[in-house]
Amino acid sequence: MELKPYLRHVNYYETDQMAIVHHSNYIRWFEEARLDFMDQIGYNYRKFEKTGLIIPVVDVSCKYLVSAKYDDTLSIRAILTQFTGVRMAFRYEVRFRDTGELAATGTSTHCFLDENRKPVSIKHRDRALYDAMVACVEPESV
Amino acid sequence: MELKPYLRHVNYYETDQMAIVHHSNYIRWFEEARLDFMDQIGYNYRKFEKTGLIIPVVDVSCKYLVSAKYDDTLSIRAILTQFTGVRMAFRYEVRFRDTGELAATGTSTHCFLDENRKPVSIKHRDRALYDAMVACVEPESV
Amino acid sequence: MELKPYLRHVNYYETDQMAIVHHSNYIRWFEEARLDFMDQIGYNYRKFEKTGLIIPVVDVSCKYLVSAKYDDTLSIRAILTQFTGVRMAFRYEVRFRDTGELAATGTSTHCFLDENRKPVSIKHRDRALYDAMVACVEPESV
Amino acid sequence: MELKPYLRHVNYYETDQMAIVHHSNYIRWFEEARLDFMDQIGYNYRKFEKTGLIIPVVDVSCKYLVSAKYDDTLSIRAILTQFTGVRMAFRYEVRFRDTGELAATGTSTHCFLDENRKPVSIKHRDRALYDAMVACVEPESV
Repeated sequence: MELKPYLRHVNYYETDQMAIVHHSNYIRWFEEARLDFMDQIGYNYRKFEKTGLIIPVVDVSCKYLVSAKYDDTLSIRAILTQFTGVRMAFRYEVRFRDTGELAATGTSTHCFLDENRKPVSIKHRDRALYDAMVACVEPESV
Repeated sequence: MELKPYLRHVNYYETDQMAIVHHSNYIRWFEEARLDFMDQIGYNYRKFEKTGLIIPVVDVSCKYLVSAKYDDTLSIRAILTQFTGVRMAFRYEVRFRDTGELAATGTSTHCFLDENRKPVSIKHRDRALYDAMVACVEPESV
Repeated sequence: MELKPYLRHVNYYETDQMAIVHHSNYIRWFEEARLDFMDQIGYNYRKFEKTGLIIPVVDVSCKYLVSAKYDDTLSIRAILTQFTGVRMAFRYEVRFRDTGELAATGTSTHCFLDENRKPVSIKHRDRALYDAMVACVEPESV
Repeated sequence: MELKPYLRHVNYYETDQMAIVHHSNYIRWFEEARLDFMDQIGYNYRKFEKTGLIIPVVDVSCKYLVSAKYDDTLSIRAILTQFTGVRMAFRYEVRFRDTGELAATGTSTHCFLDENRKPVSIKHRDRALYDAMVACVEPESV
């Protein structure tokens, strides 16, 4: 299954007085791209949370290469690099849509928690989601 | 009871590429000052929400007079201008702490909703809060 | 000229612990819709700022009718209600795309400032923009 | 020189619908603590930018241990772990003020750029700042 990159227009309020995008916004864009990824494989996160589970962020990182600016359109790929059913990890590539130039890269790790906020394995809660996620894993090859 | 104005240091990430604070942040500061107001009169909003009630925003407005900049310290007054037990209204004055110059003014209106998200009168749910709020009302005199 | 409404998917990080969109985000969406409006009539704001002019916000307001939630798609109309060359005013209508239901309405007023941050009339600086804007005015009829 | 940790009250708008602080805000708090650190050692960042230099972020990371919630007060330490005059690195510790419990840790790396956005060594531009920063370095010992 070929997933589409997530396209994102940079908003004016995302800039700071250096006249570039404030670095904290990339962390938000990673989330947008990750939830779009889940939507594309058939697991809309709004519906997912209604099952009582949540997927909090365990850690996050970002490397800034070329500053994005207001009105740029970015193409963000969320790549699932690890999935155990209990934890998962993503890598992100943020590129300028028009040139393909890499603006930033990043990572995030997540765990699955149940209604009591205890770790839970998706393998037993939702086997179809588990299989869909496993099928998407692209181990890191950098 | 004399309430203290809410002091707020302007953060770097609150600026935009005009090198001034992005206008949406004042709406957030109004919330900070309003919750500080409630805290000062003895109604911490965290505890308040634990009773099952919420106080959503019905409308909000802001007039921008002099732009705040990174590293400014602002003194924000939240003034309760109306309180019926079902609805309440605030007026805000944002001043530069060091000069007293007015940076912005604003307003907000709120209602009280119960556990079923239905309008509720605080007068019957929490008479002490009702009385405390009524005692704070400063009708508009603009 | 028929302008398209601005479509906006609600992001997870725009929600708060009431499980609805935090009210300050609508002010940011108004900006997105307003800049999209200018883009559609041929005046990309990135290019516009490069001429040395800026268009700060003089005042803003929002009335909240039905709460938007994570994953909703909204259709936002920015309607130019006044344009003098020195000042302009917009009205906003935020609707749920799928039902057309009105989620919020708002207004904003803006002025044009030159390189020295003095008020300037667009009529003399950029007659084509002036004419394009004047042609878009839809006086309020509420 | 003993630096004070940076105290930060959690705002309502920083929460999301998981009823915890959205993870992107910690990146913003790191910036607040870092600029407070510079202020404490005598290098107010507003004044610093007026010299024509900027200090963009090269990379950032955060590990989330215990979720902060609305109305918590956090105590954030920014620890300078590396300083070469051209680059610098910080480590962050975010604790709940009342219990000392660790909520999150993080890192960031920065470079110094001049008026032409070229890398510059602070050692030659501002020897006093260079010496002040070098004196604050606490190499990582984790």
